[in-house]
Amino acid sequence: MTSTLPRTVDPARLQEVLDGRWAHVRRDAREQLGDPKWAPVYGESVQEARERITRLAGELAATGRVGLGFPKEYGGEADAGGSVTSIEMLAFGDLSLMVKAGVQWGLFGGAVQLLGTQRHHDAYLPDIMSFALPGCFAMTETGHGSDVQQLRTTCTYDAGTRTFDLHTPHQAARKDYIGNAAEDGRMAVVFAQLVTQGEPRGVHAWLVPIRDEDGNPLPGVTIGDDGPKAGLLGVDNGRLSFDHVRVPREMLLDRYGQVAEDGTYTSSIENETRRFFTMLGTLVRGRVSVGGSAGSATKLALDIAVRYGDVRRQFAAPGRDREIVLNDYLVHQRKLLPALATSYALAFAQEELVNTMHDVQTAVHEHGEAVDEAAQRELESRAAGLKAANTWHATRTIQTCREACGGAGYLAENRLPQLKADTDVFTTFEGDNTVLLQLVAKGLLTGYRDAFGSLDGWGRVAFVADMVRETVLERTAARGLIARLVDAVPGRDEDVPLRDRGWQLKVFEFREKHTLEGAIRRLRRNAANEGMEPFQVFNSVQDHVLRTASTHIDRVVLEAFVAGIERTTDPDAKALLEALCDLYALSTIEADKGWFLEHGQLTPARSKALTATVNTLLAELRPHMVTLVDGFAIPREWKAAAILEEEADRQEAMHLEDRAAADARLRTAVVAPDDSATSVEVAPAQ
Amino acid sequence: MTSTLPRTVDPARLQEVLDGRWAHVRRDAREQLGDPKWAPVYGESVQEARERITRLAGELAATGRVGLGFPKEYGGEADAGGSVTSIEMLAFGDLSLMVKAGVQWGLFGGAVQLLGTQRHHDAYLPDIMSFALPGCFAMTETGHGSDVQQLRTTCTYDAGTRTFDLHTPHQAARKDYIGNAAEDGRMAVVFAQLVTQGEPRGVHAWLVPIRDEDGNPLPGVTIGDDGPKAGLLGVDNGRLSFDHVRVPREMLLDRYGQVAEDGTYTSSIENETRRFFTMLGTLVRGRVSVGGSAGSATKLALDIAVRYGDVRRQFAAPGRDREIVLNDYLVHQRKLLPALATSYALAFAQEELVNTMHDVQTAVHEHGEAVDEAAQRELESRAAGLKAANTWHATRTIQTCREACGGAGYLAENRLPQLKADTDVFTTFEGDNTVLLQLVAKGLLTGYRDAFGSLDGWGRVAFVADMVRETVLERTAARGLIARLVDAVPGRDEDVPLRDRGWQLKVFEFREKHTLEGAIRRLRRNAANEGMEPFQVFNSVQDHVLRTASTHIDRVVLEAFVAGIERTTDPDAKALLEALCDLYALSTIEADKGWFLEHGQLTPARSKALTATVNTLLAELRPHMVTLVDGFAIPREWKAAAILEEEADRQEAMHLEDRAAADARLRTAVVAPDDSATSVEVAPAQ
Repeated sequence: MTSTLPRTVDPARLQEVLDGRWAHVRRDAREQLGDPKWAPVYGESVQEARERITRLAGELAATGRVGLGFPKEYGGEADAGGSVTSIEMLAFGDLSLMVKAGVQWGLFGGAVQLLGTQRHHDAYLPDIMSFALPGCFAMTETGHGSDVQQLRTTCTYDAGTRTFDLHTPHQAARKDYIGNAAEDGRMAVVFAQLVTQGEPRGVHAWLVPIRDEDGNPLPGVTIGDDGPKAGLLGVDNGRLSFDHVRVPREMLLDRYGQVAEDGTYTSSIENETRRFFTMLGTLVRGRVSVGGSAGSATKLALDIAVRYGDVRRQFAAPGRDREIVLNDYLVHQRKLLPALATSYALAFAQEELVNTMHDVQTAVHEHGEAVDEAAQRELESRAAGLKAANTWHATRTIQTCREACGGAGYLAENRLPQLKADTDVFTTFEGDNTVLLQLVAKGLLTGYRDAFGSLDGWGRVAFVADMVRETVLERTAARGLIARLVDAVPGRDEDVPLRDRGWQLKVFEFREKHTLEGAIRRLRRNAANEGMEPFQVFNSVQDHVLRTASTHIDRVVLEAFVAGIERTTDPDAKALLEALCDLYALSTIEADKGWFLEHGQLTPARSKALTATVNTLLAELRPHMVTLVDGFAIPREWKAAAILEEEADRQEAMHLEDRAAADARLRTAVVAPDDSATSVEVAPAQ
Repeated sequence: MTSTLPRTVDPARLQEVLDGRWAHVRRDAREQLGDPKWAPVYGESVQEARERITRLAGELAATGRVGLGFPKEYGGEADAGGSVTSIEMLAFGDLSLMVKAGVQWGLFGGAVQLLGTQRHHDAYLPDIMSFALPGCFAMTETGHGSDVQQLRTTCTYDAGTRTFDLHTPHQAARKDYIGNAAEDGRMAVVFAQLVTQGEPRGVHAWLVPIRDEDGNPLPGVTIGDDGPKAGLLGVDNGRLSFDHVRVPREMLLDRYGQVAEDGTYTSSIENETRRFFTMLGTLVRGRVSVGGSAGSATKLALDIAVRYGDVRRQFAAPGRDREIVLNDYLVHQRKLLPALATSYALAFAQEELVNTMHDVQTAVHEHGEAVDEAAQRELESRAAGLKAANTWHATRTIQTCREACGGAGYLAENRLPQLKADTDVFTTFEGDNTVLLQLVAKGLLTGYRDAFGSLDGWGRVAFVADMVRETVLERTAARGLIARLVDAVPGRDEDVPLRDRGWQLKVFEFREKHTLEGAIRRLRRNAANEGMEPFQVFNSVQDHVLRTASTHIDRVVLEAFVAGIERTTDPDAKALLEALCDLYALSTIEADKGWFLEHGQLTPARSKALTATVNTLLAELRPHMVTLVDGFAIPREWKAAAILEEEADRQEAMHLEDRAAADARLRTAVVAPDDSATSVEVAPAQ
């Protein structure tokens, strides 16, 4: 599958493919969010940033775009995929505004919508959508962020007063890192352990007023400020504690669990853990949004670094009359191009995820269909895995882009510092990435209904039950095409060209399957060892277990890339994407070549050839670097990086001056041919 | 060399080894810099930060510690190593102050001291040392940061007026990112192309007044502000342009090149390029300081993350009555322990570098000996390589530590955000790391006098000349010991335990030698190819060339670790360091296992065993994690991270409350044995 790339490719053809199903939402954002007021601002104090972002959140509400995800009865568009895409587009602008919007309309509004029932919707959704009622999503506690099933805030029903008693028993139980809490929030969706009739019923959520009309904390509510953060200065993260706060019975968001006046508890989901994860599962949109937003920030950073690298020059070379452009250096290409290929790959995977999320949620919430539990579980796993992949890619790549711009990359005027600082928290919020990989792994390892549990307690029984299962990987995208490509690979791998897509798909599959089977085998061996304590059964292979997740995600992403290429109609764009997909696949294999060599999937000779092939691909793709970032279609006014405006002019001015100076020296030399004339020859080469 | 570690190790014994030759400087800093005024401050505006840091710089001058590196005649101590160690200690505090001090007394003062002559010393050193004369080191230009030999600022001698004409011909030639320029600087050491009698003489430096007594720019000097940066808010970086500014003849820092009244140029170094690199070479202290400072910041981040991970708990496990401590998770150990081992390794390598630097510089500048060019070149290469290794390790590790602290790691009150933001620029200032690796590689590839040139133009001739050279790696530390260890490795590598130090040293050596020979072979092949343009001769193997540098640095660092262990007298501390060195060596090999497999240095089976051995080492070292950060001896008041003060108390309060609640439930269950009693059993396990 060696490609001969066309000389030029129309970036609009790439954009079409990337824009996908919600192209209209993206187009609309590009057109409407061009006003400078939406651009990020640097150098503000925390207070200035918060005030600006609060104001902009109100203006954003007025545009109506925040309603995309809400029901039509309340003026929304019931378009789950559109709402996530809209957040992803906001992430090209000020990331504080994106997060503030995500808190208000995604987390807070989404919880009221999806965990509440009609009385909550009627009473609050209109004000939530208009931002008249700013609110918080108060789940995380100082002591429990990853393991939210173990939250320590209690909410105890008192049938006598028909109210709940919401209480923070100690400092580890205070709500922490809560967006909208420090200043703006008037109400909060508070997650706490429900106790009724003396019995714990697990985590539920209540809609709790926290501030009065004047913005003062209500009695019993203590509000703290998380203070300055690494980034996201415009988001007022804070802390909430409750000292026996009385909450009316009807403020329980009771879609999945109800408490009658006398305190009787009812739920359609018997198992407490399953109920909890069902509730959490409805909130998957947040995780999908973070992954998508990380993708946008990464594209923007790549756009800046690639364009700068295309005009910035450094170091002369013999025979070249100007210094070398950074993008011409192999090692610069090594930094930027595989990252660019991964951004394309993840964009295709994200598009697929948003599609799935939209369809699953629309079926349930709009068409009233029963939850397809397998589809829901798959969706959650995919959302978790791609959130981790997207956000780690963002942290790594934005750092690379910052370094690729040298000292200029450290100046706020060139945008990269803020992109870095703002996105940094993405790897640990909406689920710590390591914990999310564990969630993905657990899904892969058990594949059973009872996997639908907490992340802890990898007990003995579950593993033994697992062993009988045969590992069959289900292809995730473009199934027919991928099957054909894999089947077409001839028997002896060594003879297959490295750029054969079928071979690439096959080794990604092999690695996942082998890793998964290895993890199962190790867990079984451990579980059979009576002397091993349960925690060690799991912990001694935790690294291997997490690898099942990362290899799975890699395959999902590659398959999505292949499916994306399949949807590409323009032959030139298609050829370019084929080469880019080769680079994604081969640089991923290269980064893990130790494993492929250990497991007989690469011979030493083929492994060395792999590196050479990656370098060949870099040379092929070099002329298309700018086209590839053009494909992201990021409007000029969103970039807000001074170097993009200035560097080309500076280089040109220097070049003209250099030439004029050389001419002058030459004239001097001709007029007065003394010793100094020799400098004419030396100068251009040195 | 399987070690059985002692149950406890006294961290003071580790500290002794790490403190090394300048232990007195470190001790003094720990005692004197404990006052809260030296602690970092977050949440300031740029202006507040600048004012505070300027004030502190004055107070620092008053302590006298800034004089360590200056000649005794001016009240200094002529202790080059001590001055660098002092900067390294400052880096545990406010990094803006460290950089401000580095600019004033390292770069600016150092340039006057080392490039100037007695008239400059007499006139300016006292005021520089007292901070009465704040100054800039104006080398970098917007258009040239890495390739400073190509600076475009000109300084042309006019024999008529006996002055130089200093001029910025276009915007790409303005001085940029210059510390002390935006606000405080009264003079600047300006680097520019000297032209005299119509002939260009290459880059030289002048001491140029830039502001008057009132702080206003002098005529012809335009000063700009680089504005907000990712971090280092307290450093006033700015831009300087000169419009035909007249500079008196005696302001040329003329140690290496002199201009007589009539404009006649003289220099003890004939070759312009060699002269330039000799001048730069004297300034190596800055690069050494940045590497050391990056090391301090990394140690501090590890201190915070390791201590937090030792009290923070998350997720229950069957059979454990409390949730699991983060440091008990294998994957958490995988994140922190190899990084900790690398920090120890780099600390030993840095100590060795400072020793060498001190001895080389003392010989020349104090004892008036001739420059030992081989030693000087070796020093510069080592400084470049360790600067790159230390600063990339810092960026990577501080990020890891931030993520390991979850949401808490994103709050400014927990120190990590500022550590991250402040150190970020280290990878590209004082030499872009990629360019520095190239410098190291060039030294390795040629090993000749004429390697002493610019970084560009890897011409044909140099390579052909190279080929005859035999690759013999010179051991860098503890030569005798290392030779004995390597020689003791039996013939068949496969049978040697992975923890055999000799085997580890041997494969590090093998990798470097093989990589180097491969690079030479490829370059020769390219050079022989007449159709290949000179830039491509080099560029097509740039990745391979840079690997010669990184594998070289890895070996230097391992050898320094081995030498450091050899200096350790306490047997328990020694045993712990042996295990830590195993972890450094084996995790480094593991990270590059693809290469070792490709080149027959690991069989697939041994490669898998390597991963298992790393995991065994993590388990062995787990109980010593806190001891290892205790060994850094960072005073409590320097850490300034709220979580370190609070988390343990929170966990304890939660535990007591949990136990009380469980007791209460148990009492309820015993008193009223109804259905709800079953929850008693479920609760602790879930």
